[in-house]
Amino acid sequence: MAYKPLDAKTAVDYLKGRAAVKDILPPNEEYIANELGDGNLNLLFIVTSRTNPEHTVVVKQALPYLRVAGDSWPLTLDRIVFETEALLLYNELVPGLVPRVYDHDYEMSLVVMENLRHHEVMRKALVRHKRFPKFAEHISTFMANTLFFTSDMYLSSIDKKQLQEKFINPHLRKLQEDFVFTNPFMDSPENNWNPLINDLAREVRSNAELKASIVRLKEAYMAHAQALIHSDLHTGSIMLNREDTRVIDPEFAFMGPIAFDVAALLENLILNYASQFVHIPNPDERRDYQEYLLDTIRETWDSFASKFSRLWIENNSGDLMPSKYWDFPGGDRAFTQFRHRYIQDLLRDMGGFGGVKMLRRMLGIVSVWDITSISDPTKRALAERFVISMGKRWILESPSINSVEDLIAIVREEGAKINA
Amino acid sequence: MAYKPLDAKTAVDYLKGRAAVKDILPPNEEYIANELGDGNLNLLFIVTSRTNPEHTVVVKQALPYLRVAGDSWPLTLDRIVFETEALLLYNELVPGLVPRVYDHDYEMSLVVMENLRHHEVMRKALVRHKRFPKFAEHISTFMANTLFFTSDMYLSSIDKKQLQEKFINPHLRKLQEDFVFTNPFMDSPENNWNPLINDLAREVRSNAELKASIVRLKEAYMAHAQALIHSDLHTGSIMLNREDTRVIDPEFAFMGPIAFDVAALLENLILNYASQFVHIPNPDERRDYQEYLLDTIRETWDSFASKFSRLWIENNSGDLMPSKYWDFPGGDRAFTQFRHRYIQDLLRDMGGFGGVKMLRRMLGIVSVWDITSISDPTKRALAERFVISMGKRWILESPSINSVEDLIAIVREEGAKINA
Repeated sequence: MAYKPLDAKTAVDYLKGRAAVKDILPPNEEYIANELGDGNLNLLFIVTSRTNPEHTVVVKQALPYLRVAGDSWPLTLDRIVFETEALLLYNELVPGLVPRVYDHDYEMSLVVMENLRHHEVMRKALVRHKRFPKFAEHISTFMANTLFFTSDMYLSSIDKKQLQEKFINPHLRKLQEDFVFTNPFMDSPENNWNPLINDLAREVRSNAELKASIVRLKEAYMAHAQALIHSDLHTGSIMLNREDTRVIDPEFAFMGPIAFDVAALLENLILNYASQFVHIPNPDERRDYQEYLLDTIRETWDSFASKFSRLWIENNSGDLMPSKYWDFPGGDRAFTQFRHRYIQDLLRDMGGFGGVKMLRRMLGIVSVWDITSISDPTKRALAERFVISMGKRWILESPSINSVEDLIAIVREEGAKINA
Repeated sequence: MAYKPLDAKTAVDYLKGRAAVKDILPPNEEYIANELGDGNLNLLFIVTSRTNPEHTVVVKQALPYLRVAGDSWPLTLDRIVFETEALLLYNELVPGLVPRVYDHDYEMSLVVMENLRHHEVMRKALVRHKRFPKFAEHISTFMANTLFFTSDMYLSSIDKKQLQEKFINPHLRKLQEDFVFTNPFMDSPENNWNPLINDLAREVRSNAELKASIVRLKEAYMAHAQALIHSDLHTGSIMLNREDTRVIDPEFAFMGPIAFDVAALLENLILNYASQFVHIPNPDERRDYQEYLLDTIRETWDSFASKFSRLWIENNSGDLMPSKYWDFPGGDRAFTQFRHRYIQDLLRDMGGFGGVKMLRRMLGIVSVWDITSISDPTKRALAERFVISMGKRWILESPSINSVEDLIAIVREEGAKINA
């Protein structure tokens, strides 16, 4: 079927013709579609039976233009392909941690998936200081499994390269390269920041040591093809409730540095931490919620690291190094040390990437609801100054850290300055 | 034209039907073809006019099986595609440093190129201790240009990824991953070494520190996509004379770590250096030739580094970091420091890769004529012990070296032990 944007009426008609959705949308019922998308990049329809609310799906269709990038058709088509292919792979690797995919149609540039109607977007929930007791457990499993099982530690060399080829994804990578690692740190017309932090913006953009570190991190983002990363794993890409967690929107997926996904997540918890200096006026309540966030950071990293390591021990089938390579007196210990060092390198990369992403949210085009929901610019500047101090320190100090506690200690030190 | 292996007669007939070779092989002359290849991987024909020896080409055709790997047809087709596409790109980037390509036919799995009839294979010439005064100048230009102009420092992000996609080259990469970084360092049936160095083979294969370093280097080879590397740039892939240098056989090309090409070259000069302890009995003559080799190593690295740096300064058009990023007070110095550090990292990677490649030539399936041309096993063991000491030290000491002199100093120290 040749590409044509759907509307609320044609979406229902379209789905009637798709055999793959007959189970979830029984043909003898009547359906209505509501368009939810922001209309900027994608159309998003919720299609639901008038008689049975469980007979419902989401249809996501790419629009043939990308306003933010000024780019054209091939990019648009690619977006849904990368998102769908990543979701299909995630459904194999971590079933239950992503929405189910019912159908896809690349000519129509659309995917039909599970309607997560009992879940909410994590970012909005955190701004309202909600807690999710199973989140760290779920997200660490998501990251350990998706990253390990697409790495050279698990895949054969040929399979890894074929997966890499499938996710070259050049146009969306270019967006992240520019808007995460580059433009926020130099004069660029789309940059947007609070004038009350002009001094910090100027300082960051002319800090030679910091900028040398950022370009090294960008080089790793561009060229270090460790595993298939989600590449946009912030709290806006997570829908959840107290019992269940789902990762959505993996259209940026490509073979990149493993630590980038963990960094995106933990960085967004830090942004939320910063916002609570304003969102929660009561000091005890605030401290309590911020401690919850730090506990979540600690538990997420520690669980990720131990799950990743356990997967490696139990599934060392990839071509990075066969177990036979470690078969010599002392080889077990050497393999263990190698794994520890590999994961320590991930921790250090994670701190660096996390720091860059904090700074870009304060200085670049892509702001973040946790902070922008603070309407008073003076109060917002308080949170922003905290984030910028954090970002700089995570970048500069990460090469010498040894545990996630070192990163958390930086949060506490900078937080103490605000509370003082 | 469907694939069919050529023979001496059909090769001539085939070329008569190809418009692209009409200038180099005028149709009114009579031609004869001689098959030169080893018949293992490729057919290689020299086709020459009976009346004018300058009317001559080389035809290289892949055979539909790869004895060494036991793999099949798709691999074979790919080989000629990767070789030809790399040669075409090299002809743009470094004209005069690779054979000209006259024609190619991927259905027939063949390429028609310049017959380098005034050149010899560098490895054989070095074994006969010949000197090539312009070699370091030429090869450093080849490496600086091919590596810089395919890197993120020069290419746009999109172009770089598209080039990466074109050269995923999984099957040939797998061969290098196995036979350079893995199998020589563990029990593997195809490994082949001089029984007189059994003690060293055992020691290398159970040296935990060394093997941890090797796996880190293998990870970089597998996953660090810095630039389009030749990936098999030893002295057997170079044809030259006193005036002219050509790089051949880039079928292993892919987006990999820049230092690997430089390492392959310098490592092969070290292997030749080692062989001269036996090949040249006269101590003065030997020292003189070995110094020539060390001068070539020094000049090649230093020229490569300075050319690469100059290209970067003059052509910083890639997406790694636009010049605007460095536009702040002190930014020039910061950019200079970043370039220096990048090139220092290349030097350190180069030492590591070079060391791994020395060891694999002593312990794995792929031996090397410089050393195997020493027929007396006892004398050969002398050279092999030197190479293994060198390889270990280059691997273990490279992370802390600061200049190519540090690598050369290791050669002198190990050489002094032999002369003592």
